[in-house]
This record gives sequence, structure tokens and C-alpha cells, in this order.
Amino acid sequence: HLSKLPNIETTIFTVMSGLANKHQAINLSQGFPNFKSDQKLIDLVSKAMNSGYNQYALMPGNMELREAIAKKFDLLYGSSYHPDSEITITAGATQAIYDVISAFVRQDDEVIIFKPAYDCYEPSVRINGGKPVSIQLEAPNYQVILNEVKQKITAKTKMIIVNTPHNPSGTIFSEADMLQLQELTKNTNIIVLSDEVYEHIVFDGEKHQSVCLFPDLKSRSFITASFGKTFHNTGWKTGYCCGPKALMEEFRKIHQFNVFSVNHPVQKGLADYMQDPNTYLELSEFFQEKRDLFLSLIKDSRFKFKPSQGTYFQVLNYSEITQEYDVDYAKKLTIDYGLASIPLSVFNDNQLDNKVLRFCFAKTDDTLKKAAIVLNRL
Amino acid sequence: HLSKLPNIETTIFTVMSGLANKHQAINLSQGFPNFKSDQKLIDLVSKAMNSGYNQYALMPGNMELREAIAKKFDLLYGSSYHPDSEITITAGATQAIYDVISAFVRQDDEVIIFKPAYDCYEPSVRINGGKPVSIQLEAPNYQVILNEVKQKITAKTKMIIVNTPHNPSGTIFSEADMLQLQELTKNTNIIVLSDEVYEHIVFDGEKHQSVCLFPDLKSRSFITASFGKTFHNTGWKTGYCCGPKALMEEFRKIHQFNVFSVNHPVQKGLADYMQDPNTYLELSEFFQEKRDLFLSLIKDSRFKFKPSQGTYFQVLNYSEITQEYDVDYAKKLTIDYGLASIPLSVFNDNQLDNKVLRFCFAKTDDTLKKAAIVLNRL
Ligand SMILES: CSCCC(=O)C(=O)O
Ligand SMILES: CSCCC(=O)C(=O)O
Repeated sequence: HLSKLPNIETTIFTVMSGLANKHQAINLSQGFPNFKSDQKLIDLVSKAMNSGYNQYALMPGNMELREAIAKKFDLLYGSSYHPDSEITITAGATQAIYDVISAFVRQDDEVIIFKPAYDCYEPSVRINGGKPVSIQLEAPNYQVILNEVKQKITAKTKMIIVNTPHNPSGTIFSEADMLQLQELTKNTNIIVLSDEVYEHIVFDGEKHQSVCLFPDLKSRSFITASFGKTFHNTGWKTGYCCGPKALMEEFRKIHQFNVFSVNHPVQKGLADYMQDPNTYLELSEFFQEKRDLFLSLIKDSRFKFKPSQGTYFQVLNYSEITQEYDVDYAKKLTIDYGLASIPLSVFNDNQLDNKVLRFCFAKTDDTLKKAAIVLNRL
Repeated sequence: HLSKLPNIETTIFTVMSGLANKHQAINLSQGFPNFKSDQKLIDLVSKAMNSGYNQYALMPGNMELREAIAKKFDLLYGSSYHPDSEITITAGATQAIYDVISAFVRQDDEVIIFKPAYDCYEPSVRINGGKPVSIQLEAPNYQVILNEVKQKITAKTKMIIVNTPHNPSGTIFSEADMLQLQELTKNTNIIVLSDEVYEHIVFDGEKHQSVCLFPDLKSRSFITASFGKTFHNTGWKTGYCCGPKALMEEFRKIHQFNVFSVNHPVQKGLADYMQDPNTYLELSEFFQEKRDLFLSLIKDSRFKFKPSQGTYFQVLNYSEITQEYDVDYAKKLTIDYGLASIPLSVFNDNQLDNKVLRFCFAKTDDTLKKAAIVLNRL
């Protein structure tokens, strides 16, 4: 049988976490916290199971959760999504992204993707017969240059995927970037898929520039988001997608036949938990302390860096230490030095290697201190 | 934007459950139990959350759960699947089915489907550019006539979807049926997708004929299965898929980018729970009592029926009562008589109407008694 993805190998996340486990290394590779989430949230999910939320949720999701999300958009962005027709709960942000792409991308459609990019965008486009069109962002700043987008837009451009705060680089889009994206796509049929899973993790007083803040842009955009990243339970695999009614209708046709609906007790627990907006409003502060701790500990190391502006990742350039290929160096760090990270070349076209590794700082202070000791030795 | 599924409307399950809620009708429509699952299982999932199973599971699933599934196949069918390379945990059986179809079906590939059919097969084929090829099973017996399959096989046939025990009809494949299916597909490249979500619900001492009992057939088949149907928690949305290594590799490429992995605490709880095989071995007996109760209560009604051989559904023919179109009659029963069911025409090509409704008997005895009172009045 012909493979739809002949070149796909085991994902870097599985490779690096596996290697970390095997060599008992400190694991700053795959993006997940190594601390417990709020016990209150866990108890609310248990309570939901015990009070009978164990059969199918509605196909687009538990209504209380959709209402809590709508409230969040009002509160944070003064932007409204209708819970009935514009919000759908998904089995994680990855599944939301897959639904968006599958709903609109057909044979030979082009999808513009900025590199480095999270690893699910491109294969999801290919599975649906589409063609990824890359725009490479330049290290060390990874600034989006939206003029390049203009040059890549053709009659076949169906979608542009943006991701702010950006994984893996930790950069964020500015208001000017978003306005330019809005301008570029004005009066086109291009759909914007805005992956905003780190929306609540933005540092130094900056503001997350959600597509929903720009009404014209919002009218052709989907937002995909993650409860796992926000509430420290990546293994619960729950997220959501928002978009204007007409687009959401097509999204739901795919969603219905892909998963139909998602874990009900988790949805009910999240709905109850989100009644208190502080559960997500305090996240930037929480992670900024972690970032600041981590960077202060390694400031005298031989790694070069610009502080991450958002996400729970920090990229470090190791070119003063060695010229090794980043995948080899990441493996060596794990096996010989007991510290796992993610090499950035796997997110670039043609494995472009800028001697950069990504470290996840969603870890206990103790873990970050131990990691810093290793980094300072190099 | 062109729709990939221009003709898809709200699913009948959403429509009928919605109507049932609105009119406070007894809901025997959508297939889910109205009783609580084993408290022990709920407690095991809570325990998993409290002991820290809250971050990403491995992409193909928690290994203990995959091992418990492998043990089940050994025990029940004397057939082995390797937990490492041949079993993957999914966000419900629907998502497993979507992954299988997306991994292999391309533009213009043909997929043979028996009608009446569960409603997700055909759209999933279409989303991937394939062409559903139907074989209509005849009421009231809904017997598979595999000779018809032979006539429908062409050079473009990529897949045959079978479902035993069969939803909605409640019929099961015999050993002879399976041998014939094996024979028909021998030395072809056709993949068999065997939807076995009701594998543990087979009545009157009959045996479930899993594709894995037939080695040659097994070598080109996927099995999709559901923990929700087996353990009475349809809202947890967890299932699995088994298949030979080479096929499973392609399946996982889709799975990885569709959902990556599924709810970890649920997986851990299920793994612990399944250590005792009685948790699934006693299911046929449990549901046979429900079927027998339901049928004994309506034996003097004007509905005609053959007892369901498997699943937790019973189809009833109402042609002695009225000649109304089944969708209209199902709605009328819900609104005017307070009893919701599923009309079979929605699962047929061209809404073929045999005056048959499907009733779910995964309900408390009390609910079944109340439903029978309504049915006896008609
Ligand atoms: C699904 S595993 C990858 C987790 C993640 O978001 C990352 O490490 O970037
Ligand atoms: C996903 S809702 C449908 C549930 C079901 O399996 C059925 O009613 O047939």
C-alpha cells in the first residue's frame, strides 16, 4: 500500500522523551510540565464522573464549557464567539488543527507555513492532498516578514497557518504583524488558522495578539487552543476551536465523523474550574518566574539567547561550544550529559541547522536548577 | 468555500436525543446506557489522576492498556497482537475508523459498505476523496450476501467495511460469512476494516466472529473497538485499533497528526480495571437479560421483530401500525408518545424505508418497562 506520508518517522518528541527515559536524563524536550496541576481541577473531574457525566457530550461540546470559553474571549479580548455555533471542543489542539485543515484543504491546495513550525501542520496538509508552502524565519530573531507572504500567495493559496506565541522559537506577533496579516488577506478567500495554544503565556507585560482582536481578520480565521497547555494537564488531550459560524459549520462536519465528541467528565470539570478567571489570568506571571529563573541561572554559560517572549520554551544557541549538527548534539547532551532538549532543525525545511536547541521550562524550580548545572558545564 | 460534505446535516443521534430532551421523552435513540458504570472503574481513573498520569501518554497509547488488550485477544480468540506495534489507543472507535480510512483511502478509491450502516463510514470515505460503494442488506433479516461483494469489487476497491455485531440491525456474521469474506479478499490488496465495537455483546450462546480468528483475513484487516460500549462510559471517548504491523505503521502516521495521543488517566484506569477479565466476559449475559426483558414485555404489541443477535439495539417493524415514513413516525413517537428511537432509513441509501425503528436497550429495567408500556399502546 502506498503511504500518504512516506517520509514520516517517529516524531522528535517521542524520540527525545524516549531517550531521556532510557538514560534517566532531565527531560526538557517534549512540552509538558513535570509538576501537578491544581488539585481542585482534578477533584472537579472526579466529581463529574461521580455525578454521572459519563455518556456522550453534545457533538460540539459540553455547553457550560463552551460558555466559559465565550466568557474568556469577552473578558480578555472584548471579542465574542457564540457558544452555540462558533466554539467546538476538541480532543486537544492537534485534533482541532487536523479538523480545520481537513475541512478545507483539497488536492493541490497550497497552505503557507512559517518555519520553524510545530510538526503537525505540514503532514496534516499532505494527508489531505495539499501542498505546504514554507517561509523560513531567520535565526536568531525569527521575525515574521509578512512581505514574504505576499510573494507566496497564489490562486491556489487556501490557508495560512500562524502561531503566536510561537513554538519553538518563543517569539510573538506584534499588533503591526497582525494588521499586516489582515491587510494581506483582505478580500481574499484565504483562511487563517491561528494556533494560539500558548495564548496565556506571554512575558514582560506584552499582550497576546489574538486574531480575534482584528475584526476583518477574525472573519476568516480559526483559533485553535489547548486546555492541556493552560491547566498543566497535557495528557487529558482537550482543546477547542473557535471560528465564524459559516466556517465552523464545515469544521463540525469533519469533527463529527472524526471523533464525534470528546471526554465528557473532563469537559464538565474544566467548565466548573474556569468559572474563576484567575485560573488562566495568572499563567503569564507563573511562567515568567520560571523563565527568569532559568535564564538567570545560565546567563554566564556559553549559550547565547534572547529571552523567550511567550510559550514555555527557551531556545539556546550553542555555536560557541561546538559546530555539531543539532540533532547529534541534542542526543549527545541527553546520553552523555543527562539533559534532553529538542533540536530546531526538525522544524525547518531541509533540516536547516542554526545550532539551536529548544528547552521546556515548564518544570519545577529544582529541575530547572539541575538543568542549569549541566548547561553551565558545557 | 466548497464543502467536502455538502449534504451532511445534523446527525440523527443529535436530532433524536435533542428531541427526546425537549419533550422529556424516554430516550432509546442514541446508543448509550442510562445506568452508571462500575464505581471501581471511575475510582481507578480518579486514582490515576491523583497519582500523576496527567501528561502525554505515549503516542500509540499507555503500554499497560495495550498489554491488557493483547491479553484479551489471547484469552478470547487465541489470536495475538503485539502491544508494541499492532495496537493503538484512540479517542473512541469513531476516531479509529477515521484514522484507518484516512491512512489508505485516496482520491477515487472505492470502499464497499453494507447498508444500513453506522453513519460515520461514508462521510469519512468522502472526506478523503474516496467513493462509497453500497450493498443494501434486505429487511427483515439483513443477511450479508457476500456474493454481491464479489460483483462490486473492481480494480479501484481499496477497502471493505464490515460490522459485526451489526449496528443498527443486531445481526451477526457467521463463521461461514467470515470464511467467505476471507476467500473473496484472498490474494488481493483490499483492506478489511472490521468495526467490532459490540464484540462483547452477543446473545443466545453464539460466538463473536472476529476477523482475528481467520489468519489470512487477519493479515489484511483492522479491528476497531470501543471501551465506551463495553464499560458503559460512552462519554469517555476511548477505543482502540488493532492490525498487522505494516498496516498499523501507516495508521499511526495519521493518528500521530490527528490526535497524537488520548486521555491518559482514562487509559491507566482502564488498564488496571481490565486486569480482571470478568469485567468484559460477563457483558453478553448482562445485556441478554435486558434484551429478553424488553422483548418479553412487547411480545403482544403490534411491532414485529426478530430478537437481536448482538449489540444493544433491537429493531422493530411497525408496518402493522402505520405506513408513515420512518423519520416522521420516529419524531411523532417522541413528541406525542414520549419515546425516542432511531429510524433506520437514515442508515440506508436513498433513505430506503422499511418501516423499521431501532431501540437501544442499554437502559435500566425501569426505563425498559416504561418504554414497553408506550409500545404496547400503539
Ligand atoms: C504532542 S508532544 C509535543 C508537545 C509539544 O507541544 C511540544 O513539545 O512542542
Ligand atoms: C456517537 S452517537 C451514536 C451512538 C451510537 O453508537 C449509536 O447510537 O449507534
